[in-house]
Amino acid sequence: MTEADTAEDEPKGPIDFYFDFSSPYGYLAAHKIDEMAGLYDRAVDWKPVLLGVIFKTTGAQPLLDIPIKGVYARRDMERTARMMGLPFTLPEVMPFPSISAARAVYWVKDQDPAKAVALVKALYDEAFAKGGDIRDAEAVVRVAGETGIDPAALSAALGEPAVKERLKTEIESAMQAGVCGSPFFVVDGEPFWGADRLDHVERWLATGGW
Amino acid sequence: MTEADTAEDEPKGPIDFYFDFSSPYGYLAAHKIDEMAGLYDRAVDWKPVLLGVIFKTTGAQPLLDIPIKGVYARRDMERTARMMGLPFTLPEVMPFPSISAARAVYWVKDQDPAKAVALVKALYDEAFAKGGDIRDAEAVVRVAGETGIDPAALSAALGEPAVKERLKTEIESAMQAGVCGSPFFVVDGEPFWGADRLDHVERWLATGGW
Repeated sequence: MTEADTAEDEPKGPIDFYFDFSSPYGYLAAHKIDEMAGLYDRAVDWKPVLLGVIFKTTGAQPLLDIPIKGVYARRDMERTARMMGLPFTLPEVMPFPSISAARAVYWVKDQDPAKAVALVKALYDEAFAKGGDIRDAEAVVRVAGETGIDPAALSAALGEPAVKERLKTEIESAMQAGVCGSPFFVVDGEPFWGADRLDHVERWLATGGW
Repeated sequence: MTEADTAEDEPKGPIDFYFDFSSPYGYLAAHKIDEMAGLYDRAVDWKPVLLGVIFKTTGAQPLLDIPIKGVYARRDMERTARMMGLPFTLPEVMPFPSISAARAVYWVKDQDPAKAVALVKALYDEAFAKGGDIRDAEAVVRVAGETGIDPAALSAALGEPAVKERLKTEIESAMQAGVCGSPFFVVDGEPFWGADRLDHVERWLATGGW
């Protein structure tokens, strides 16, 4: 067996998928990344972050609040969703605090990663397919309950210091990895920012880079 | 002849292509837009603007100066250029003042639009293919001279109040049209921001919208 054979047999690392629940483009990407990863035998590591924390370093403003750019962004989001064939409604409050949603995902993920993915999709759909409100812990627990997660256990977990600390650590790691927005992907160390970079991600997966 | 026939025979409007000479993604788009427009029988209206003026309204910072994001952006630019098969070198000073370059283009355009397009491409290549310096009027005049434009006449024009006023008016119109970055395209009233939206532009040209 040659060295090349060995390398080919080794399982390839996951696609690290960073997103904020308050990010409309994160919602769009969440509906595409699994299928793309599957085509190239990759897993997806779903990693919610808080843009509010990251923006303290990058100095970015919430997109929809920016003069001229906010008007454009709203139109671009709607057009992109239509192009992707996905329902799209902006929640009333944008951006919204997504800390409970993010904490919930890591808590579920530590027990059952597949359930965490189902929770991500359910929360994103609640916010951007239905225009619902997932800001409060109660709303997050309700949506989680609908995906088969124990509401009482989750509700108790969301108040635990270890669960809060877990999200903090994940956001620090994300910033170390260069995450500057949502959605953000890392494939074999190569960073890609934006739902509009999924074409680069796919080409990278297919070719190993260029 | 039916109304539909008439509509089909009418020439379609140009693609409005807004860009700042200091924008690396503008350089990349400038190498693609003509070919794409040609496929759909469209002209391109080349419209240099100054992001520095627009950013006063949007509050944006120069991309490469932003913590974390700047590091990513540099990598993304290089990767995108490689993917498009275009040479890419960042000029030493980024972003750079592009006011003389922009004024020169409108002055040439008013006499000979085709020559203005050649000038845009020569200036962009000087900056981002060769990493050269096109900040000063002298540098702009030199590059223009190489594309067959009368250097003495251009040099004199760059100091004229009417030429300065022309650029100012164009930037005001661009902001009225919703231009918030570079490159920015408007097709039949529909706005598209970013070299990574050229796929949307092409689909819009092909389908008339969705």
